[in-house]
Amino acid sequence: MAQTVTAAVLLIGDELLSGRTQDSNLKTIAEFLAPLGVEVREARVVPDVKETIVETVNHLRKAWDYVFTTGGIGPTHDDITADAIAAAFGRSIDVRADAVEVLTAHYAARFAGEKGMSAELNESRLRMARIPDGADLILNPVSGAPGFCLENVFVMAGVPSIMRGMLQDVGHRVRGGDRVHAATVRGRGMREGDIAGALRKIAEATPDVSLGSYPFMKVLAEGTEFGVNLVARGRDPARVASAVDALVELLVQQGATPEINPKD
Amino acid sequence: MAQTVTAAVLLIGDELLSGRTQDSNLKTIAEFLAPLGVEVREARVVPDVKETIVETVNHLRKAWDYVFTTGGIGPTHDDITADAIAAAFGRSIDVRADAVEVLTAHYAARFAGEKGMSAELNESRLRMARIPDGADLILNPVSGAPGFCLENVFVMAGVPSIMRGMLQDVGHRVRGGDRVHAATVRGRGMREGDIAGALRKIAEATPDVSLGSYPFMKVLAEGTEFGVNLVARGRDPARVASAVDALVELLVQQGATPEINPKD
Repeated sequence: MAQTVTAAVLLIGDELLSGRTQDSNLKTIAEFLAPLGVEVREARVVPDVKETIVETVNHLRKAWDYVFTTGGIGPTHDDITADAIAAAFGRSIDVRADAVEVLTAHYAARFAGEKGMSAELNESRLRMARIPDGADLILNPVSGAPGFCLENVFVMAGVPSIMRGMLQDVGHRVRGGDRVHAATVRGRGMREGDIAGALRKIAEATPDVSLGSYPFMKVLAEGTEFGVNLVARGRDPARVASAVDALVELLVQQGATPEINPKD
Repeated sequence: MAQTVTAAVLLIGDELLSGRTQDSNLKTIAEFLAPLGVEVREARVVPDVKETIVETVNHLRKAWDYVFTTGGIGPTHDDITADAIAAAFGRSIDVRADAVEVLTAHYAARFAGEKGMSAELNESRLRMARIPDGADLILNPVSGAPGFCLENVFVMAGVPSIMRGMLQDVGHRVRGGDRVHAATVRGRGMREGDIAGALRKIAEATPDVSLGSYPFMKVLAEGTEFGVNLVARGRDPARVASAVDALVELLVQQGATPEINPKD
């Protein structure tokens, strides 16, 4: 019996909803979790509004095994995620000695010997040491200020490079399930409308493998490049392999030269 | 009294949650809606699961003025958005003559004179002419198959170039509100922790302008480039301009050379 472990990703920040910032954290987190056997089932983007964050976290942490949040844990007034998470769990929150220690050590190492550079632990920076009661710190090798993990919720920074750094301190705390194996079969020059009927038959014949069809189209100087990426996903690698065989056969019958797991 | 018109974006597709595909549609839609005076307040990413789509659409269309969905309206078995939207509204759905006409005309024009190319309106392609009862078509200049609009829900394709094409037939149907004006002041070399206290004071002094602080960090061959983008957003351009003045002054006091609305 396959063990399914699920997660939600919660992206926090006005800048993602205004169109100012292109998110990349959802993809990074999903790709990080896949080999651990954790499937992202839902993602939400919410603004910097405390009640909204509280309500959304409380929904997601009950609905899924894990929740991964990004954004809103810096030193400025619009960084309200830590307080919102504490409120969601009904925990108190304050500047914590272990977080101050981490910050102090990071700044000392970071600015050692750099003339004129320092990072005084002023009131604003101490905001980044506000950690809900009972939470475990997530180390931040990039910029020092820690994230934290409270029960099944992992709270991380929004800046992608900092978030990626934090993920290195996350994997070992995640109980994974059976991983989903995925394979892509590309048919250049194929049009979905020509293969959809045969594809549906393959999908119906392999109910334990999910088949997705993703058309692509790129306008290049030498003309439009188009085709279809067919993706097979499932927990049993043998069943995925057998679906891939069927997809390859389908594309060959249509006159294409199928590419398996193309790099780009 | 400012009139606020709100929207949610619903991104539909397993490929966005598995990490296979990087979404760009949220940003495109938000940037498209901003000048129309429509604010995106929430976004969700859901898998190709009919009940989930139905439930999410029914929540979002009641919570916000508009809902914009992307994905799942192609010809393959995993394209279930049109049926899900019909179910959400309790409408019937079938192949519609107006949609067939649009498809036929597009394929005739698209493949005219191209040797060996055609696009037979087979059963699979006719799936793309399945439109819920009472919905208005959204034209698709890129690949023909229309989206549709049902009450306050706009249903569009997931492929970014096709989605962008559809947006051209969307704007004129949206009742806008007072638009939000935004301006960015960049302070290179600034660190959030040094300016957060003063920034909070500016935020408190201009409650009708929302101030966001977004640190950036780029690792380049010649060293790490870092700084802060301070963003002022509000409905009254004069108030935004006055907040910008305050932000510029703050950065000058800190020894930076502020850049207003930098291009990149």
